[in-house]
Amino acid sequence: MTLTIRNVIESLRSTVPPIENTVDVLAPGDPDAEVRGIATTFMATRQVIDRALALGVNLLISHEAAYYSHRLTKPFPDGDPVYRGKQERLRESGLAVYRHHDYCHRLEPDPIMTGLLRELAWEACVEEMLPAAAVLRIPETSASEVAEYVKARLSIPYVRVAGDPDKACSRIGVLVGYRGGGDNAIPLYRDKGLDLVIAGEGPEWETPEYVRDSAYQGDSRALLVIGHAESEEPGMRDLAERLRESYPGLPVHFIPSEPVFRVM
Amino acid sequence: MTLTIRNVIESLRSTVPPIENTVDVLAPGDPDAEVRGIATTFMATRQVIDRALALGVNLLISHEAAYYSHRLTKPFPDGDPVYRGKQERLRESGLAVYRHHDYCHRLEPDPIMTGLLRELAWEACVEEMLPAAAVLRIPETSASEVAEYVKARLSIPYVRVAGDPDKACSRIGVLVGYRGGGDNAIPLYRDKGLDLVIAGEGPEWETPEYVRDSAYQGDSRALLVIGHAESEEPGMRDLAERLRESYPGLPVHFIPSEPVFRVM
Repeated sequence: MTLTIRNVIESLRSTVPPIENTVDVLAPGDPDAEVRGIATTFMATRQVIDRALALGVNLLISHEAAYYSHRLTKPFPDGDPVYRGKQERLRESGLAVYRHHDYCHRLEPDPIMTGLLRELAWEACVEEMLPAAAVLRIPETSASEVAEYVKARLSIPYVRVAGDPDKACSRIGVLVGYRGGGDNAIPLYRDKGLDLVIAGEGPEWETPEYVRDSAYQGDSRALLVIGHAESEEPGMRDLAERLRESYPGLPVHFIPSEPVFRVM
Repeated sequence: MTLTIRNVIESLRSTVPPIENTVDVLAPGDPDAEVRGIATTFMATRQVIDRALALGVNLLISHEAAYYSHRLTKPFPDGDPVYRGKQERLRESGLAVYRHHDYCHRLEPDPIMTGLLRELAWEACVEEMLPAAAVLRIPETSASEVAEYVKARLSIPYVRVAGDPDKACSRIGVLVGYRGGGDNAIPLYRDKGLDLVIAGEGPEWETPEYVRDSAYQGDSRALLVIGHAESEEPGMRDLAERLRESYPGLPVHFIPSEPVFRVM
């Protein structure tokens, strides 16, 4: 039986009620095309697209959008060679790109979250799994030691730390992606009695300044910001594993990226 | 003649048409209170508030909001000791806090932008001053050398670099605060022929990934992300200088902050 792109998308969405105005679209791509191979990745960068093509797949499942915007509200900048080059490479190659974002985060538990926890070897430490956060209890460890542990487990070159690096941490909240903002992270510290939040990304003068104020007022806390891609790649790696199990015999790959920033 | 807080606010707003739904509010504070001294700062953190009080001023002019949110849409988390402690310290001390943000950025040129350019000693390099960006031409310098220059001039411990660190840069765009996102920064590269953008803060998979794709496709470019506070503090330092000139004899101070993050 032929496996089509539509079959794969329907399977990815099968256990989640329909989401209105979802950003999860197939673009470009023909839903009736036969799938000859799949690659998963955090973001369909130009280099990831070339790697997918070199691997011979014709469906790339990307967590984030190819064109640098969560929701494209404007046409591409007129004649911009970066957009145009990427669009032409996709068109000439026939690679289909499907965004697996909303239907992924809406699963319970969110596989992007469980992917990060697996990579951190913290699955057994979860006390509570909330829709947008995990609450963990680990053996007491200083925030700076947790930072070193996270760097080693995720093979990332640096993390950013706010608050008290010497804070002895046992209650930890984990938030993937762009959930490090104050609306998500600040209430968790108090409601869940957290010593430390580990987040992908968030505005700089929200949670970090809350944590700094908290430490200054005598309630020492800490925050690790590990990077948006760094927090979500493990979940996309896991997706490749699940797709391999679902479609035996079909080539399925995970394509990692180098960190987008270097610190100088 | 008595100088009131209202007088100071009216002067700060005097050359800008009224802005609807502005975040620039006096909270807490009595507009009819006499000003005994002013401090300016990037953000009214708990430590900045204590320093302002130690300096004996009764008006703190802060670029960003005290409570970790650009626009507070919810009540404070119930009983959160960080919010409550800050609120009580302000109440008991009588320190007034005025946010100078929208009326500041709306000035032409934006003094937050000119403050950063002054601190970088790049005022003479400006070719074009746009409402939300400056376009500069500097003698050709590699992106990594620019990074070192910016760190030294601003006395900051690190910057984050995306794209090609060896890119020879002469056309530079500068965007302060949270203007490093794709909507603001991406069109500038092409429309202004930029080699490099220097921004305060922005989402990680917008402009940085655009720059990475551009470099991969053969059009080498770079991005320096220097930090939100780091990009806006110099403008608030300049404001203290201007207030000193406007109100001779009145104590006026600028209160800096340490970087909120350390890199590990």
